[in-house]
Amino acid sequence: MKIKNVTVAGGGVLGAQIAYITAFHGYNVTLWGRSEGSIERIKPRIERLHNIFSKELDLAPSYIGEENPDYPRSFFKDKSEITQEKIEELKKINDKIYKDLKYTTDLDEAFSNADLVIEAIAEIVDEKKAFYEKISTHLKEDTIVVSNSSTLIPSQFREYTKREDKFLNLHFANNIWRQNVAEVMKHDKTSDESFESVIEFAKSIGMYPAILKKEQAGYILNSLLVPLLDSALMLYGDDIAEPKDIDMDWKIGTGAPKGPFEIIDIVGITTVINITKASPKAQDPNSALAKAVKKLEERAEKGLKGVESGEGFYKYK
Amino acid sequence: MKIKNVTVAGGGVLGAQIAYITAFHGYNVTLWGRSEGSIERIKPRIERLHNIFSKELDLAPSYIGEENPDYPRSFFKDKSEITQEKIEELKKINDKIYKDLKYTTDLDEAFSNADLVIEAIAEIVDEKKAFYEKISTHLKEDTIVVSNSSTLIPSQFREYTKREDKFLNLHFANNIWRQNVAEVMKHDKTSDESFESVIEFAKSIGMYPAILKKEQAGYILNSLLVPLLDSALMLYGDDIAEPKDIDMDWKIGTGAPKGPFEIIDIVGITTVINITKASPKAQDPNSALAKAVKKLEERAEKGLKGVESGEGFYKYK
Repeated sequence: MKIKNVTVAGGGVLGAQIAYITAFHGYNVTLWGRSEGSIERIKPRIERLHNIFSKELDLAPSYIGEENPDYPRSFFKDKSEITQEKIEELKKINDKIYKDLKYTTDLDEAFSNADLVIEAIAEIVDEKKAFYEKISTHLKEDTIVVSNSSTLIPSQFREYTKREDKFLNLHFANNIWRQNVAEVMKHDKTSDESFESVIEFAKSIGMYPAILKKEQAGYILNSLLVPLLDSALMLYGDDIAEPKDIDMDWKIGTGAPKGPFEIIDIVGITTVINITKASPKAQDPNSALAKAVKKLEERAEKGLKGVESGEGFYKYK
Repeated sequence: MKIKNVTVAGGGVLGAQIAYITAFHGYNVTLWGRSEGSIERIKPRIERLHNIFSKELDLAPSYIGEENPDYPRSFFKDKSEITQEKIEELKKINDKIYKDLKYTTDLDEAFSNADLVIEAIAEIVDEKKAFYEKISTHLKEDTIVVSNSSTLIPSQFREYTKREDKFLNLHFANNIWRQNVAEVMKHDKTSDESFESVIEFAKSIGMYPAILKKEQAGYILNSLLVPLLDSALMLYGDDIAEPKDIDMDWKIGTGAPKGPFEIIDIVGITTVINITKASPKAQDPNSALAKAVKKLEERAEKGLKGVESGEGFYKYK
């Protein structure tokens, strides 16, 4: 199916980014919010994205050639595409879409013409179920529905969508114009056609589609990241090495830009405590992981919660 | 203790690098080899290092200022230390030490004046035990002995050294002039004084000392890397995602320069098979990890063994 009209449901940080980048790549985008209040919270996020994209495009000439190896990969297919002409064209698009985005709380207006619905509402199972049921009667027969969930899997929700074969997950990373990877995960009832359409859609908005052929809790990225962070936390829990040394060893040894404890500071210690506590390896209170959770909790009580609180394992101005 | 004379035992890839960087930082270095044959195998490695260091120093002016964020960190404490004067000084040192390195097969010549012995012989338990016993009668009372083992822990060997309090591990990474991290691991009988001396020694040769206060199989780096690679292999074993997508997701999502399967290609698939087979998680033949090992073995049989064989998960010219 040719996707033209895309509706993004939920205007949180990710919802706004997904809507914006989709519009930026030429789709007709509607943002649906549950209430007028939620619409009003979306608008400043979109405004901020308009500014960020403007700044990225102002910087873009420095990405031409070999000067700067980094560039916003969702804007340009490769470095050869970065030309003054292209930059000017994207600037015009950026200023236009900003005004053309549609906002609504009306279900029919939002969903009856959508070719693709991207659900980016809160990670609350019952809310998602209710949402899918509610929109199902408003959709066209061929609408594809995807969830941006980062933790839940499609088979939990598919029956509520009334279109199991046209439902799957499309999970974006934060700052998607730079971290341009989208995890596309099917379940065993997703049709090949819907799967392919969503993969093509992801490519068309400048994403690298990381394809999951089967359901996997944690998708790809968190399936790798959580064990890495757990291993670092175990060294810390058993008092084998200090976070700074663990980070430096990892960074120097692998060339990674961030060490595990820098990542923990970014994710936020409260979230890391919640995820880690649920791990089977943390159930024995004498385990290294349980001891690490205890140390994290002590730090959290002192307000050392990571980047957002200004200090975690490191200080942030 | 003031360390001045350092003897490196074993002139494999790492032994040669350790000896060279130690001499480069002003120590009086002796390379001990088991036989004349092993001495003859060391010399071309040292010659190659002399050339590499020359090239690095020729390139060093480009590291001045902000042009190139990367630089060989074991040569300069920080970027402000990179000056034309310093570069010239290091070039002279590089040409001098190359000729001043001492080689011997004689135990007394190698060990009786050593303040520090760095053991970098093969990772074979019995060979290491025999080596420690053999040298123990040749050492001064205050000589500190360290092992560069990457997989074995000091308590396995300490009794053979006849100096448990002056024995610990100092594990280097490959290409140590750039990957300048050294894991310093004590056991419960290592004296604080020896531990501190080795930490200071590591700093003095331009290393970041990553300190392990207790024994840990896998040290820091492999304690993190193995679970990361295992997790990637499990996704592959269960046919959830393809290596290329796993790598891209990891690289875009975390900014890491290499994905798990690129690292597996560098380590070499044969080594990865051997390590992974020994994992408790791979013992059930229906486990994701066991299925991954099977797939790796099929690839290895086809000669797809990684960088060294010219092709693994990726092609190398």
